[in-house]
Amino acid sequence: MYQIIDGKKISAEIKIEIAKQVEEIILKGEKRPHLAAILVGGDGASETYVAHKVKACEQVGFKSTMVRFAEDISELELLSKIDDLNNDSDIDGFIVQLPLPKHFSEEKIIRAINPKKDVDGFHPENIGRMTLGLPAFVSATPFGIVELLKRYKIETSGKHCVVLGRSNIVGKPISILMSQKAEFANATVTVCHSRTQNIKEITKQADILIVALGQQGFVTADMVKNGATVIDVGIHRVKSDKTKSGWKLLGDVKFDEVAEKCSYITPVPGGVGPMTIVSLLKNTLLAAQNKIEF
Amino acid sequence: MYQIIDGKKISAEIKIEIAKQVEEIILKGEKRPHLAAILVGGDGASETYVAHKVKACEQVGFKSTMVRFAEDISELELLSKIDDLNNDSDIDGFIVQLPLPKHFSEEKIIRAINPKKDVDGFHPENIGRMTLGLPAFVSATPFGIVELLKRYKIETSGKHCVVLGRSNIVGKPISILMSQKAEFANATVTVCHSRTQNIKEITKQADILIVALGQQGFVTADMVKNGATVIDVGIHRVKSDKTKSGWKLLGDVKFDEVAEKCSYITPVPGGVGPMTIVSLLKNTLLAAQNKIEF
Repeated sequence: MYQIIDGKKISAEIKIEIAKQVEEIILKGEKRPHLAAILVGGDGASETYVAHKVKACEQVGFKSTMVRFAEDISELELLSKIDDLNNDSDIDGFIVQLPLPKHFSEEKIIRAINPKKDVDGFHPENIGRMTLGLPAFVSATPFGIVELLKRYKIETSGKHCVVLGRSNIVGKPISILMSQKAEFANATVTVCHSRTQNIKEITKQADILIVALGQQGFVTADMVKNGATVIDVGIHRVKSDKTKSGWKLLGDVKFDEVAEKCSYITPVPGGVGPMTIVSLLKNTLLAAQNKIEF
Repeated sequence: MYQIIDGKKISAEIKIEIAKQVEEIILKGEKRPHLAAILVGGDGASETYVAHKVKACEQVGFKSTMVRFAEDISELELLSKIDDLNNDSDIDGFIVQLPLPKHFSEEKIIRAINPKKDVDGFHPENIGRMTLGLPAFVSATPFGIVELLKRYKIETSGKHCVVLGRSNIVGKPISILMSQKAEFANATVTVCHSRTQNIKEITKQADILIVALGQQGFVTADMVKNGATVIDVGIHRVKSDKTKSGWKLLGDVKFDEVAEKCSYITPVPGGVGPMTIVSLLKNTLLAAQNKIEF
């Protein structure tokens, strides 16, 4: 019988832990952790994401600042604001909500953020530090996956971890993290992607299968070894006549048929998703406590 | 019948190509590429390595500058010299020869180098850029391996590449490069290391086997698939009564028994080794031409 990896429950627990640490910080007379978010333009989804982040800050007792710009702001204005936040000692960390309007080079904008305040973990220096095994801000999804494996005490050392997908925000960083010489890592890691031949032969070897391909229902039961742990990073909105809203959320894994073969599996929704916001809170707390030494 | 991947020959060819490009630069009236190397203390091996690098610069027509410091130089003095080189517009790239004496934090020293002049490719920002698939200075050994695969037109796309070793200077970067969405990459990549179980089962799946474990003679014939390409990064000095010097060089692969199963294999010496210096020259040329856009 498989066990559900309950990201919603774990993320709620972590929020409580963070809130307690904030209380202790305040009791010691120290400054309240402070996250700022820059939102450019009025993209609906981005607006919702930033609102969720601000709300999560409130829940754990962080101070938060939202900086809004019109869509037609110049690169110079945005860079100037980033410079302000880099130099504002009250701000522990900040994020620039992506995607940016098309006239921006996201790469240039991200590179302007001081890596010490880059709590999204997107700056090349943080990616490089993570790769080298140095203390670093790790981006939300890989951070969340590692945390779920930790909390469910899933053995990773010497296990074969197969990662489907090589994106910069999920596949690459999680494959690097899983093979590091570290606790809750030390796995033998294989990265598969669109060019991989005989993908099923490889996924069937996986003790831990992390799926971040962005293809709904890609992983079927015949691709999974008995007793595997399956982590589903995909999230797809699919029409449904069985829900009031008229749609439902599905992952990259065919949950109904795959779950029975697993020892552990994340559901969609309620698996990896809820972990991403707490990852941002954790990074902000680490920044406030200067726990990442640069 | 297997084919030897002749790193000595390829490196000589690349030196000639670089020398031609330098001639063109000079004919256009532009500045001669200029590499500087900082050597701290009198470690014999480091001295030899730096001398080789300076000599290679001469061979291709680069200007080179060697900066020597006594072993007991302070961190501040070294950082101040790095700052000078960062700001010296005649210096296109520079390296700090490692290892440094123990009172230095190598991490701190490397981080002080301007990533734009970090032709060793050790700065976290270069590692991060390489991971993200952005233009970057790639460090010598992974750069050299990719170049050998290119020059011998060895198909990598969709092939299973198994990397033995997860060091920061070889295993990690080469595994990241081989799985990138890029020409001479696009491989399915598995990283194995000391904690890997059933390593032979995995190496036998490899179309391309890259061995960087640092264990002499680790890879035996029974671990290799027929027709595989084997790249041996190991280099070990072993006693021998058959050579005049009394020792010989051996790799991580038992060449004599493994070669017969291969389609391509690198020898030791004369395989990956000779490529490392030309990688440094190539990076310096790229720096001089501002070909890596930061």
